[in-house]
Amino acid sequence: MKKDEHDILSTIQYPEDLRRLPVGALPQVCDELRQLLIKEVSGNPGHFASSLGVVELTVALHYVFDTPEDRIVWDVGHQAYVHKILTGRREVFHTNRHLGGIKPFPSPEESVYDTATCGHASVSISVALGMAVAAQREGNERHVVAVIGDGSMSGGLAFEGLNNASSMPNNLLIILNDNNMSIDSSVGGMKQYLHTLHTSAAYNRWRDRAARRLLAWGWLTDKGKRRLLRFNNSVKSLIHNQQNVFEGMDIRYFGPQDGHNVIALVETLRSIKDMKGPRLLHIHTTKGKGFVPAEKNPTVFHAPGKFCPETGERVVGDETDQAPRYQDVFGQTILELARNDERIVGVTPAMPTGCSLSIMMREMPERCFDVGIAEGHAVTFCAGMAKDGLIPVCNIYSSFAQRAYDNIIHDVAISGLHVVFCLDRAGLVGEDGPTHHGAFDMAALRPIPNVVIASPMNEAELRHLMYTACMHHDGPFVIRYPRGRGVLKHWEVPMEEVGIGKGRKLVEGSDTAILSIGPIGNLCSSIASERGCAHYDMRFLKPLDEGILREVASNYSHIITVEDGVRDGGLGSAVLEWLSDQGCSTRLTRLGLPDRFVEHGSPDELYKIVGLDREGIERWI
Amino acid sequence: MKKDEHDILSTIQYPEDLRRLPVGALPQVCDELRQLLIKEVSGNPGHFASSLGVVELTVALHYVFDTPEDRIVWDVGHQAYVHKILTGRREVFHTNRHLGGIKPFPSPEESVYDTATCGHASVSISVALGMAVAAQREGNERHVVAVIGDGSMSGGLAFEGLNNASSMPNNLLIILNDNNMSIDSSVGGMKQYLHTLHTSAAYNRWRDRAARRLLAWGWLTDKGKRRLLRFNNSVKSLIHNQQNVFEGMDIRYFGPQDGHNVIALVETLRSIKDMKGPRLLHIHTTKGKGFVPAEKNPTVFHAPGKFCPETGERVVGDETDQAPRYQDVFGQTILELARNDERIVGVTPAMPTGCSLSIMMREMPERCFDVGIAEGHAVTFCAGMAKDGLIPVCNIYSSFAQRAYDNIIHDVAISGLHVVFCLDRAGLVGEDGPTHHGAFDMAALRPIPNVVIASPMNEAELRHLMYTACMHHDGPFVIRYPRGRGVLKHWEVPMEEVGIGKGRKLVEGSDTAILSIGPIGNLCSSIASERGCAHYDMRFLKPLDEGILREVASNYSHIITVEDGVRDGGLGSAVLEWLSDQGCSTRLTRLGLPDRFVEHGSPDELYKIVGLDREGIERWI
Repeated sequence: MKKDEHDILSTIQYPEDLRRLPVGALPQVCDELRQLLIKEVSGNPGHFASSLGVVELTVALHYVFDTPEDRIVWDVGHQAYVHKILTGRREVFHTNRHLGGIKPFPSPEESVYDTATCGHASVSISVALGMAVAAQREGNERHVVAVIGDGSMSGGLAFEGLNNASSMPNNLLIILNDNNMSIDSSVGGMKQYLHTLHTSAAYNRWRDRAARRLLAWGWLTDKGKRRLLRFNNSVKSLIHNQQNVFEGMDIRYFGPQDGHNVIALVETLRSIKDMKGPRLLHIHTTKGKGFVPAEKNPTVFHAPGKFCPETGERVVGDETDQAPRYQDVFGQTILELARNDERIVGVTPAMPTGCSLSIMMREMPERCFDVGIAEGHAVTFCAGMAKDGLIPVCNIYSSFAQRAYDNIIHDVAISGLHVVFCLDRAGLVGEDGPTHHGAFDMAALRPIPNVVIASPMNEAELRHLMYTACMHHDGPFVIRYPRGRGVLKHWEVPMEEVGIGKGRKLVEGSDTAILSIGPIGNLCSSIASERGCAHYDMRFLKPLDEGILREVASNYSHIITVEDGVRDGGLGSAVLEWLSDQGCSTRLTRLGLPDRFVEHGSPDELYKIVGLDREGIERWI
Repeated sequence: MKKDEHDILSTIQYPEDLRRLPVGALPQVCDELRQLLIKEVSGNPGHFASSLGVVELTVALHYVFDTPEDRIVWDVGHQAYVHKILTGRREVFHTNRHLGGIKPFPSPEESVYDTATCGHASVSISVALGMAVAAQREGNERHVVAVIGDGSMSGGLAFEGLNNASSMPNNLLIILNDNNMSIDSSVGGMKQYLHTLHTSAAYNRWRDRAARRLLAWGWLTDKGKRRLLRFNNSVKSLIHNQQNVFEGMDIRYFGPQDGHNVIALVETLRSIKDMKGPRLLHIHTTKGKGFVPAEKNPTVFHAPGKFCPETGERVVGDETDQAPRYQDVFGQTILELARNDERIVGVTPAMPTGCSLSIMMREMPERCFDVGIAEGHAVTFCAGMAKDGLIPVCNIYSSFAQRAYDNIIHDVAISGLHVVFCLDRAGLVGEDGPTHHGAFDMAALRPIPNVVIASPMNEAELRHLMYTACMHHDGPFVIRYPRGRGVLKHWEVPMEEVGIGKGRKLVEGSDTAILSIGPIGNLCSSIASERGCAHYDMRFLKPLDEGILREVASNYSHIITVEDGVRDGGLGSAVLEWLSDQGCSTRLTRLGLPDRFVEHGSPDELYKIVGLDREGIERWI
């Protein structure tokens, strides 16, 4: 790093330092921030393109608003790296996402500048509305700002917040950061809608200038301003063949405006900062702004891993000897299944690249549905398709599937519809931390009647389970599998039917039997072989393999259950319930995730911390 | 019933009979249906006002569309009584909601005319979109119609469906039934928005007539029609100071139109039936239409119980000797708490009357928030308020809280925010059936770290728990309690602090100890006294009272756990886990709800069926 690159930035520890600068210095601050981001994230992988896109917005917000007394709520913390750097964490930013280092997403535990936990999308308007109402009720004059991307706007929660915003007295400011992207490209009517709004930017600029002039001349009262705004919106609507839903919901609308002109942003924010009532400022930004490879390919540079800070070339290790990623096995397998059965369709809530449904999308785009960040809709939409004869395979990250819990119960399970749920990112996901760990799926889904729940130990098993779920079952079928790579080099085995609720004995042994579900079974097999225990891969959480349970209950003095989900309510509890119902008192040790939120770090580090590494498991034998 | 009252209706068994009538006969069919509804529901309680409001719509839909081949998806089955009567269930309609009788909401298990399970709001667009896509993929020409109320439109799921509707080829028709009500009055920006749309009805009628004329004269191509529609909408927008979000999302918009003119409805439906692409028809209806008392007070007549079919006077038994309803104890208690602490606010997703938050609303409307049918937002909104110093008490029906599962985890529990959740309608709710039973809350919430979960045995305990949760705890606190009445006549006791995680020994005994949670404890106490067993009211599911567990594990040879939630994963499992972790092998019998969806019927009948009545429990002693 050349010293002069961070001339100004090195003087900024906290936003109050930023606020002491003249507004003319802000473009250079933005420039230095961008260089710092590129340097840091190229060497220490994390989320990248989103933060590049909001450099100017972040600087403008902390410059205009009196943070932390004023509240900024970020919708999904992907975009909050600049915010972190400006709020006392520049020196430790190199520890970002490392165990014990700064957290992957904003967290009130870490900083008073972080107002809310924000790992899941679409929450910011609701949270910020709560804060705005609290300020109002307490007679506090503080400002509350929600920053939400257009991708997050497809989530129903964002709409619920928006719908509620004008129902109560509050001065919430919503910044709609419109870059036409979530992680992949945005989809849906709202995207179309916002796009049309954007194309009318020139008109809006003219309108805003005119209104400001009238105001300056003293020709405009508050009431008159409101009427004029409405009239203007109508004219705009006439000219541009479009309408503005925000105004229709009694939220004042400003913009759209270029989100990369920091001085203009400061000016706009200052002018609308103290207005009363809910307002929305629509800005247009470029995801990856200022780093050409990221601008060109924002999906890849959403979280690119290590890359060259000059060329953008990604540092990819030699993968020829590596096992495939589970997500790619899913993507390849659903494509094979779909080729053989026309009824199969794929559904993803905004994660085609992340879950590799993109593999099927390339060959049969008309049979794949990216429904936007809308997990609940993804599931209920599948219910409708299943009811009328299709076989929908719905891929959702485990922790995001929590958002579709009622949809799974009410829309799928009660009617026993044939929907296959592939829950990617089950278990501890690593650096993304507690908001993203897939910890609760097994315990939460197990009590739901009619649902089959399985987890494969390796890539071949994933294929067999997907095949069984699609072709040999009629009802809801959940398959959960982890982030990252499997264990097989030669995984493209022919698919075979698996008996529903049938596990496998993998290692013979005596005294102790280890019962596992999912990929942690590979470690269990190795431990069992070394220590002379038996090992069973249960495969199914529900229904349980009662044959295996009878066998282990009578032949072993000690059973150890191992799972990468919460210990309370999961596989161990299910086995325990069965033993108790049968009147067996075989000693049982349940190993799983503890009853606390697990921090961020590498998966290996985290599994060691929670006692699910080799040493942790061996301790119980 | 005078015979001539049902002259035509008695000839209609199925919609095909209806379709054989001349359109001119439909007003009389509607009239007869309305009389039948009034007669039936006045004597056999159920949902009333919603169905009265959609008599004409239902007749028109079945008249115009080829059901069951064409699909009608009702959003929330409250409104589907007329649909049932017209689809082969007139003769058995008197069994509605009774055990073994016809189901409270549409159910594909019951009739091919019922396309989806619809007990929860806001699902219809997503389900119907799935069906429309399935039809499209299969080359099937069938029509798919979703009927959704304006109340349900405040749910984020409806927005997600709407947002997705124009993203894929489909011919979905959405009927927006706008009566400015959910169960209570609708709230939010969308309501405001739709209201403005309605006020422009006269203009729209003129526009539609003009367009039809141009079309008839052959002056309009499809492309021209679209352009004209847009232009017209813009003019309308200019004239009426409003905009249309549906058109902005590329969904063709028709209306608003009077939903009580059946002949005009038939005409409109016929004219838009075969258009391509997603369309929305906005109709305006009156909830309770045709029965004056219901029109005047639609909230009371949403589900009025028995009433006089002439005067509307409700048949209310003598309540002077009855214990209060839990919901009223909640409403009275939160008011008392709020009087003493300014930080306390109340939040309900569209159920102010149903949960009796209305009691507090009357005295302090500015501290109560009805956020619309938006359970997820209700919780996340509370998180924001809690973060900034308020103490939100969020009342959601147990089965609807399933929709806020991720919000509870991600927005509240991870940050350990002080939000009090009062889950009304926990356990078996009775006649509303499987979509409404509060069966899963304990098992689903128990694995979430940082959360306290309690259930009161009676009204006084509810007060103590609410007081403790609000005033003596800092973190998420769940209190679940049932529908219906408690057991105490004198329940207005002074509130006392309860130790977090502390249960109570209520009955001394030997050999067997019964451990219960919630109101079923009253039955357990009675059984224990008679049978010489001990009885403990655990009060808390989490944390468990380990003192009690140690006591019963060492002093009794048999423990029976009793709960009105699912047996797998609930209290019994928690006790079992604890015993296993301690190496205790005391015999345990777990009693709770079975691993299947429980049907509808009276609570007493259902608890008997699942073995949670006196006889069922005694069998295990």
